[in-house]
Amino acid sequence: MQTLHQFQDSFESYLLYNHFVGTPIELYEPANYILKIGGKRLRPALLLAGHYLFEDDFSPSLPAAFAVEVFHNFTLVHDDIMDAAPLRRGMPTVHQKYGLSTGILSGDVMMILAYEYLLKCPTKKITEVLKSFNRMAIQVCEGQQMDMNFETQAAISIDDYLKMIEYKTAALVATALEMGAKLGGADDEDARLLYEFGRNLGIAFQLQDDILDAFGDPSKVGKKTGGDIAQNKKTFLYLKAIELAPASVADQLKGYFTNSLPIEESEKIQSVLTIFRALKVAEEANRVKEEFWQKALDAIGKISSPTDKKTILINFAAALMQRDF
Amino acid sequence: MQTLHQFQDSFESYLLYNHFVGTPIELYEPANYILKIGGKRLRPALLLAGHYLFEDDFSPSLPAAFAVEVFHNFTLVHDDIMDAAPLRRGMPTVHQKYGLSTGILSGDVMMILAYEYLLKCPTKKITEVLKSFNRMAIQVCEGQQMDMNFETQAAISIDDYLKMIEYKTAALVATALEMGAKLGGADDEDARLLYEFGRNLGIAFQLQDDILDAFGDPSKVGKKTGGDIAQNKKTFLYLKAIELAPASVADQLKGYFTNSLPIEESEKIQSVLTIFRALKVAEEANRVKEEFWQKALDAIGKISSPTDKKTILINFAAALMQRDF
Repeated sequence: MQTLHQFQDSFESYLLYNHFVGTPIELYEPANYILKIGGKRLRPALLLAGHYLFEDDFSPSLPAAFAVEVFHNFTLVHDDIMDAAPLRRGMPTVHQKYGLSTGILSGDVMMILAYEYLLKCPTKKITEVLKSFNRMAIQVCEGQQMDMNFETQAAISIDDYLKMIEYKTAALVATALEMGAKLGGADDEDARLLYEFGRNLGIAFQLQDDILDAFGDPSKVGKKTGGDIAQNKKTFLYLKAIELAPASVADQLKGYFTNSLPIEESEKIQSVLTIFRALKVAEEANRVKEEFWQKALDAIGKISSPTDKKTILINFAAALMQRDF
Repeated sequence: MQTLHQFQDSFESYLLYNHFVGTPIELYEPANYILKIGGKRLRPALLLAGHYLFEDDFSPSLPAAFAVEVFHNFTLVHDDIMDAAPLRRGMPTVHQKYGLSTGILSGDVMMILAYEYLLKCPTKKITEVLKSFNRMAIQVCEGQQMDMNFETQAAISIDDYLKMIEYKTAALVATALEMGAKLGGADDEDARLLYEFGRNLGIAFQLQDDILDAFGDPSKVGKKTGGDIAQNKKTFLYLKAIELAPASVADQLKGYFTNSLPIEESEKIQSVLTIFRALKVAEEANRVKEEFWQKALDAIGKISSPTDKKTILINFAAALMQRDF
């Protein structure tokens, strides 16, 4: 087994037998809908791979993998409401398709169903796994609130930003891996190291996402660049630019990011990108990204599992970092 | 210990030391706000009383009691969004005070925090308690969705209605008692009987609420009567009236409840009440209420706990049923 695909495939098979069949269907149909419109199943695949590092038969981790995927999709349903997003993966979002109330309530029941699946873990592991999961779930909410605060918050440090993306994005990746490790019988130190691998990888991934959104090749990224700038998102690039820029340029940037200057969107994007280039913030982001990426590699290097098993995760992480899509 | 008040007081003391102190405060302040603006703490008090039936020292159940109260308040926060309610207990609702996004997200984190407190239960009991809690949490969501469906659903049977109030209201009361019983060391049969006590009492309570909303003494109920009618709520009274009325009167009622007749609210309420009186639906509701109330008493009668301990719950149930407030 050399790639993450086989874990993704195992999970997809499990998913076929685990769509929600309860009543009223108005509650469960949106949950099945959001789960079916896709996603790459990376989080559950990572959980299974985490288990496999310590034990070949990773099937006892399938319910926990499902729980993690359902939880992730619950956050998408509620986040899309908060962002008033009409589309997700090219399809109508749940609240757009089924209404606000059903969007809230279906999300709620998905979160509860995630716990229901965690209770299907081997009995001796349940408490430990639930503790990891809960800490993560709280961090995801805190990260989302921080992200919302940033929209109106005047001063945001790079550290604030890194904590936000750690909580909002990296915590779930790290916890999925850690839960798999614990279910696979890892000792505390190995489980902690795998968590660190996921946490650092998740942060590196988000930094790369920031860079690609501004400077990626549109034909490879699959969307127009500059979306974050258009939406006034205070990414690493923006925050670093504010930090490095002379006062007048910083004021200009702040003007662009509060839409207080009367210019067209495309012109705004180009002007901001020009400032970003002049200040070399992408290079800075890349440097920080590499630091996290290196920490991820260091952590996984110390794990006691066989190298050929660890290679699956290392290759996956490398592919994630080399992508220019 | 002769009344539920002492359990309520014990819980209030626990609450003083368990407000949420995390960051960002924008996430936790709304959670503290909704918990602080009140409520009678009946559900946690019932959980503690359930424990006390089987063991004098009910303190190991305090975290579970807190979990149940936090969960209840989470449902209030999200329900108030779905109902677009501006006020709760005379105070602004969370979404009204803090905005829609924070309302959704604070509710989410409250649900997770409920699980966090369940993990503070004695280790040997955690899985069992979580299973009860999860079944209840799912039923509460299903009951809420049924209630929303009823707004536009043409044909609703009395059985549909009873199932809806069981899930939306009674399940939490029953589960609080059952969780307390299990934490107090009750055997399966006693825990089941206490659940049945709570389930039947909860349904009886809701039926009484329907009756009082239409026919209660406004000076004792503390609000104008006819609120359910004004809001076109399809209560037991309405559904029974549709069942019993001749076709022409049933059509008239349906007209009132779709606001398709051009009359003033007070006139609508009086006309509907006149129909309710003519069809004696309050008497019918009272008869069904008494059946559930009797089933509740039968169930608690069979529990193996000392009579003086059971008296606390029996007296509480009697007070609930005799109230004309």
